[in-house]
Formats: sequence, structure tokens, C-alpha cells
Amino acid sequence: MNCSDFFPMWNQLTSLQQNRIEGSAIYRSAKRNTIIHNGLDDCTGLILVNSGQLRAYILSAEGREVSIYRLFERDICLFSASCMMQNIQFEITIEAEKDSSFWIIPADVYKGLMTESIPLANYTNEIMASRFSEVMWLMEQIMWRSFDKRLAAFLLEESNIEGSCKLRLTHEKIGNHLGNAREVVTRMLSYFQSEGMVRLSRGNIEILKPDALQKLRDA
Amino acid sequence: MNCSDFFPMWNQLTSLQQNRIEGSAIYRSAKRNTIIHNGLDDCTGLILVNSGQLRAYILSAEGREVSIYRLFERDICLFSASCMMQNIQFEITIEAEKDSSFWIIPADVYKGLMTESIPLANYTNEIMASRFSEVMWLMEQIMWRSFDKRLAAFLLEESNIEGSCKLRLTHEKIGNHLGNAREVVTRMLSYFQSEGMVRLSRGNIEILKPDALQKLRDA
Repeated sequence: MNCSDFFPMWNQLTSLQQNRIEGSAIYRSAKRNTIIHNGLDDCTGLILVNSGQLRAYILSAEGREVSIYRLFERDICLFSASCMMQNIQFEITIEAEKDSSFWIIPADVYKGLMTESIPLANYTNEIMASRFSEVMWLMEQIMWRSFDKRLAAFLLEESNIEGSCKLRLTHEKIGNHLGNAREVVTRMLSYFQSEGMVRLSRGNIEILKPDALQKLRDA
Repeated sequence: MNCSDFFPMWNQLTSLQQNRIEGSAIYRSAKRNTIIHNGLDDCTGLILVNSGQLRAYILSAEGREVSIYRLFERDICLFSASCMMQNIQFEITIEAEKDSSFWIIPADVYKGLMTESIPLANYTNEIMASRFSEVMWLMEQIMWRSFDKRLAAFLLEESNIEGSCKLRLTHEKIGNHLGNAREVVTRMLSYFQSEGMVRLSRGNIEILKPDALQKLRDA
């Protein structure tokens, strides 16, 4: 566990403080599609992603999902330790989107260190500000952009993450990411296909004209 | 200026630190509808509300508005000091929604104190977590609730804030709050009126059946 990968201010912690983090961290792995953290009742602790990819999403009473953010190698998830701060009052679910491995720092250990170390408290502030910015960006997407643009942006982002033009994604899964019904996704993808921008086959979407999608996204 | 109203951990600051806050704070007042802070370029500083009511909202390219949160007496706004943290990367506008008075603490003074005082750094974390929770709640509203429920919830909240069943609100203003076109607001209010829940007159909405609105909101 190379903590300075996760905490740029690692050298500003005392060796005792460093030991408390390293000594309490628990190593875990999770297969794709496993739920790692489930809402407020579940105070898992801070998640430090070692490998793979996690997805944080919110869930409606009817079971619809919308992705809030993704966590990649070297990212830290604070909201899986929501009991650490009294003012975190929203429910988030975190799942492994790929086979993943990660460390968990118990919330009480981290909370204790935040009341001792100014650099750690301020770094935690920065992590939260960063997630806040992501959520605000997402909200603006939802509020202001029409669905064709959002879908084009999503496909390009996926293609970028996967490093491939061929995406294994069901329409339902895309709907869960974007907060839309499967039917709406299918209709828009069919339109994209009729425009020659993508080719659809069972469970697959191939991007044929990334330039056209970019143009749509940025229009 | 009674700082302990704003900072519950005021006694944990040294008297030098207290003096820096008190000595740098600038007192301002603003008439209703005045813009106090405008986006990222504008690093106003922390706003501490003394009286009145402020509204934070985001703005689309087309000029549509959606309220993000409201600030009342004794509330603190962090995001008007976005230059304080590098990871705050979204644009927020803050206006006086009523005639208001407030103190401004310069961002550099506050930032300096955050790197000295653990209680202040952690309290700042709690303020941000609290705003984050509000934004997540709003996003869930937008994503999951149908507009009739959102409008009912909004009218009840306004009535609660104003302490009156008679609200002076144009349909356009409601649309700006909720991120919907004026026409949609008008249509839904007409429906509420036909159900006997409200009475509409020029620029006014009178709530006749708060129970019915509550039932709709909680359905």
C-alpha cells in the first residue's frame, strides 16, 4: 500500500499517524457488479481504490439508478464513510463496475486523524470539493442538456475509459447511468445508428463516427 | 458581529485568530434582487448572513435559473469564496432574495486560518457536507419526482418561509426556482386551482388546502 499515491500530503503526517492509517487499512477485492457500500446505514469507511473501477450512484424508490461519479485507481471515496461527518445526509450506493481491489480505512480512525492533522483535514476538504464539483456538473447536464447530447457524451466517455470503440453495454445499463428509461435509450441509439454514428448488435455498441458524436456533444 | 453565532467552535480559536476574522470582516447590505456574487471569476469571500435571505442558483447558457439553496440569518456561504479551494469548479450566482445584510470574510484570510486551526478546517468540512447534502436532495427531487409533487413541495416550503398562506410569486419566478418553463408552471397551478388547492390572482398564489398539497407532496 503506497499511501502517498492517495494522500499527496502523506509526508506532513507524523510517523505515528502514518502507522495508524497503514495499520488499520483492510485490503478487499470485489468482483464486477458487487455492491460494496449501500446507503447511510452502512458506514464502510474510506475506500482507496487500488485497481479496477467503482461506480457511485443514487437509487429511487422505484429502483432506477443514476451514476453520480466513478472512482478509478488512486481515487478516494469519502461518502462510504458518511458516519464520519454529521452533515452527510444522502444515500449513495457503490458497486464494483469492474473486478476491483481496494483498501478500507475505518471511519473512526480517519475521523480521529482529521481532528489531529490540519493537512489531512484540508485535503479531505479538497476531496469533498472535487466530488461536489462533479455532482454540480452532472446536475447541469441533467437540467440543461438534451438527451442526444448527454448520450453522445456518455458514449465518448465510455470509449475513452475502455480505450476501445466497441462497447459492451446494454441499453438498460445506459439508462441506469443517465437516469432515463431503457426505451428512451433504445430510441436515441437507433437514431444514432440511422445517422451512421454507431453500429448496434446484441449487447454491443460500436462507435463508427466519433467526430460526429463529438460535434453533437459540443453543439 | 457575534461570531459564535456563525462558528460554533469560535472558543477553540485563539484570540489572535478571532481578531483576524473580526478585523477583516466587511459589513454590507443589499436590496432585494441584487446580485451579490457571480460565478467563479468573482472570489467575493465567505458570506455570513446577518439578516434577510440569499439565494444561490445556477444559470444555463440560455439564461434559465435553478435555485440550489437558500441562506438565512446565521448561515455561511463557502462557494462565494471558491478561489479558496482549487477543486471548487462550478459557477454559482448569489442574489439577495430579500433586503439583506451580511459580513464578508476575505477568502485569503479564511484560507490562512484553515491551515492553522483544526477546528475551523473541520467545521468548514461540515458546512460543505451540509451543502452537498442539499444539492443531492435537490438532484433527487429533479430526477425522481414528478413536477406536481415538486411544485406542491415548493409552495408549502415558501409558505413556511414566509409564514403566510398568501404568496407573492410570479409563475416565471417559480419556473426559475424549479428549472421549468413558465408555461409548465402555469398549467400545473391551474390544475391545482381547479382542484381547489390554491387560488390564483395577478402575481399572487393563495394556498387554500395545505393538507391536500402535503398529501400530494408525500404521495
